[in-house]
Amino acid sequence: MKIDRFSGVLAPVVTPFDERRQPDPDRLLAHCRWLGSQGAGLAVFGTNSEANSLSLAEKRHLLQALVEGGIDPGLLMPGTGSCALPDAAELTALAVEAGCRGVLMLPPFYYKGVSDDGLYAFYAEVIQQVADPRLQIYLYHIPPVSQVPLSFQLVERLVRDFPDTIAGIKDSSGDWANTLGLLQLGLDDFRVFCGSESFLLATLQQGGAGCISATANVNPAAIRALCDGYHGVDAAQRQTQLNQLRQLYQSFPMIPALKSTLALYRDDPDWHRVRPPLVALTPEQVESLRRQLSALAFTL
Amino acid sequence: MKIDRFSGVLAPVVTPFDERRQPDPDRLLAHCRWLGSQGAGLAVFGTNSEANSLSLAEKRHLLQALVEGGIDPGLLMPGTGSCALPDAAELTALAVEAGCRGVLMLPPFYYKGVSDDGLYAFYAEVIQQVADPRLQIYLYHIPPVSQVPLSFQLVERLVRDFPDTIAGIKDSSGDWANTLGLLQLGLDDFRVFCGSESFLLATLQQGGAGCISATANVNPAAIRALCDGYHGVDAAQRQTQLNQLRQLYQSFPMIPALKSTLALYRDDPDWHRVRPPLVALTPEQVESLRRQLSALAFTL
Repeated sequence: MKIDRFSGVLAPVVTPFDERRQPDPDRLLAHCRWLGSQGAGLAVFGTNSEANSLSLAEKRHLLQALVEGGIDPGLLMPGTGSCALPDAAELTALAVEAGCRGVLMLPPFYYKGVSDDGLYAFYAEVIQQVADPRLQIYLYHIPPVSQVPLSFQLVERLVRDFPDTIAGIKDSSGDWANTLGLLQLGLDDFRVFCGSESFLLATLQQGGAGCISATANVNPAAIRALCDGYHGVDAAQRQTQLNQLRQLYQSFPMIPALKSTLALYRDDPDWHRVRPPLVALTPEQVESLRRQLSALAFTL
Repeated sequence: MKIDRFSGVLAPVVTPFDERRQPDPDRLLAHCRWLGSQGAGLAVFGTNSEANSLSLAEKRHLLQALVEGGIDPGLLMPGTGSCALPDAAELTALAVEAGCRGVLMLPPFYYKGVSDDGLYAFYAEVIQQVADPRLQIYLYHIPPVSQVPLSFQLVERLVRDFPDTIAGIKDSSGDWANTLGLLQLGLDDFRVFCGSESFLLATLQQGGAGCISATANVNPAAIRALCDGYHGVDAAQRQTQLNQLRQLYQSFPMIPALKSTLALYRDDPDWHRVRPPLVALTPEQVESLRRQLSALAFTL
């Protein structure tokens, strides 16, 4: 029997920092509650969460705060990949123990040009160390950032050897041919998510599961509406509207712009903060963002 | 008054793993003692050490074992960079408290295309958090792996603002023009190390400090001899001999080949092990390595 797998829209939840630039569990909890109320799942500790800028202890603490704060673990798909196998195994085990419905796992991303055998060994070893039948891994293919792609051969081999554990993939390649190729592998109950809602309608039409997209932090309901209504006559129009907002964000550094949107619309300047090596928007950029969002009649 | 800075040859010390693939402090200690006896400094926790495949706790434990095992902290330049600022600050502070003469610090390497301002903020924040006048940072420029280069402008800005702390750089770009450019910045007592002994003679002739090179794990004395005797009439010949061995290693995956050399010449098969995503040499590769080393009359 397979565990009920994710579908629909998930937000790679941005991480708030307090005045000492420490992660702020209360603001994170509030943002997660709002995202859940809008129909979005919670891919905390993703690229847009600055997760690799957090220590393992910080991630452990935040995950605990979310679950103790009443977030349904059935909504949670924390990122648990790491360059270091012991870190990936530890955080993955914690996520499973906390009841998270799945984890999103980057490959180890320091060494480049590594072999499929080496990446396979990494995932297999994490699965073996966690040793829990509840574990559901969503692979995370994001070569523009990780510079370590996951080949179709590797995906097929992992699914073949761990069919009850390898549940799906997030494809953030930005390359539709790659997403389509994953969908056409024909793997049983394997959930393919696009990494940007720009590809959402096409992904759903080809049998994909949905999207895990940065802008779901600020536009979750509209993305969810396309997920739910992609057979409808207005689906193409919905996609066009999603694209318009997406393009606005792509004209800024994405993560700071998402955080500044929350700062502006929640009237909460603490949300502007990012951790190095990222840099917050300048006041001029914030003002430009505010004007452009206003021109689109954006609400939050 | 400035702390005495590093020069000469340092080995990015390979990390042994036991049968459970855990770091083996005793074997590491023995290898470090031997390297020290050959005149090499100890750049533990570097790229060749698989340092980013180790957890923070593992690195903390190994560093403690080395110092308690009697390794002179004046020889130690541990790698302390990390994607996560708290991890970099914690390990750097530990290294300083342990008396290490310097640390080698990668930039945060998950996000790509980050700004000099963001990288500057990362290093500045680590320096501020460690808050110890003994701290000596050697920057680590290794764009083929990190994919996050350190620009001349960034280097100059860091040296200008932290002249007593930013002590030098390891240039593993593999691009001589970049190393030469760093040497020609004319920064006061700023130690430029090439990342391969292929560039050692040229680096020394241009006022550089030495090299921090993978193959110093297996060929430290000869590399040190060129450092000490680069004004000698036989310097070019020494360089040619170093290149010959270097080229042999470059025909294999470097890290597994270094470890297998130790396995072969120490008659200690445990040294063959690497951690995923790296893959150990095949028996055929080990045999080829053995034959080629033997043909060069290699000894250890």
